[in-house]
Amino acid sequence: MHKPAITQVAIDTTIAARWSGRAYDAKKSVSHAQLIALLEAARWAPSCFGDEPWRFVVWNKASSPEAWQQAFDCLVPGNQAWVIDAPVLLLTCADTLFGHNQKPNRFAQYDTGAAAENLCLQAANMGLMAHQMGGFDADLAREKFNIPAQYTAMAMISVGYPADISTLSGDTLARETAARTRKPLAQLFFDASWGQGVKDVI
Amino acid sequence: MHKPAITQVAIDTTIAARWSGRAYDAKKSVSHAQLIALLEAARWAPSCFGDEPWRFVVWNKASSPEAWQQAFDCLVPGNQAWVIDAPVLLLTCADTLFGHNQKPNRFAQYDTGAAAENLCLQAANMGLMAHQMGGFDADLAREKFNIPAQYTAMAMISVGYPADISTLSGDTLARETAARTRKPLAQLFFDASWGQGVKDVI
Repeated sequence: MHKPAITQVAIDTTIAARWSGRAYDAKKSVSHAQLIALLEAARWAPSCFGDEPWRFVVWNKASSPEAWQQAFDCLVPGNQAWVIDAPVLLLTCADTLFGHNQKPNRFAQYDTGAAAENLCLQAANMGLMAHQMGGFDADLAREKFNIPAQYTAMAMISVGYPADISTLSGDTLARETAARTRKPLAQLFFDASWGQGVKDVI
Repeated sequence: MHKPAITQVAIDTTIAARWSGRAYDAKKSVSHAQLIALLEAARWAPSCFGDEPWRFVVWNKASSPEAWQQAFDCLVPGNQAWVIDAPVLLLTCADTLFGHNQKPNRFAQYDTGAAAENLCLQAANMGLMAHQMGGFDADLAREKFNIPAQYTAMAMISVGYPADISTLSGDTLARETAARTRKPLAQLFFDASWGQGVKDVI
């Protein structure tokens, strides 16, 4: 299903095409070269002091089915309902300390969000669909996968080929077919002073 | 200057092309339609609960020179040295509270980083160059622009057309011409368990 962003002026087609769908094709796996492309995209995100504070764990159902299942078990039931068909899961983590001086990095989560977005865009570029989720048990993931305390678990991401929406039902289907929405530009983006919304393109 | 990312496999050309250069063409301004394209790209980033926690303030030197100067004054001298030629400045802020229940949003900075990355990619897509900076006085920016306490100031971003590197000198020129580097993939991205680096594409 394609649900491109509706914008006042044309934007990058990959950014417009990316969206967080739920219908995955359980029969199509993601190749190792595709995985590396996803990670290369994340790797080349910008970061404060070039710290690259992101760490991602990747679980590929095809090569590591047991570990994939353990990662899946960390998700809340509402996400498990549709993630079950996704061949790849990831967990993004942010390094709380700068590498060069071991002091707190206040940009760690911000920069990790950028890297994750690059990954999602690269997925869209390759005809894959990536969906980030905050709905998982971060403590359980830390315990299962021995994530050091220095790293904050941020989001899980499902990746795979999109399937026909007929594979979904109920609430998940309703969310899949609902129109994508965003707040008006002027509510989020201000011109020269806080609260003064930018003017639309006429 | 073009310094595309060097990757094991091909990635999205916009993601590969984006980089944080410093040589701006002071004579070329950014149009309102281009600004809206940058903001539309940011607007369509994903966010937890669809909260869209990002707020951006935009200062366009062409239309608001005094406010642009006030924003510029918040930067550290090392950034001012080259930002002086950038026609547009932005400040990204993260809403610390969810809109639907006013509880802390632990994904606010992460999601704001994604929106900012979309903006930087859209700049690259249009032949503009965006450069994010952590080096600014966030307290001063809050005071000058009346940013409410609920929002955390994250990064400033310069945007404009790239110029020939002959406009730079000294340390700034050296940084501009240095090769772009990233840590090895296996150091940041793990296969199935923490610390087990992903294998390269052979």
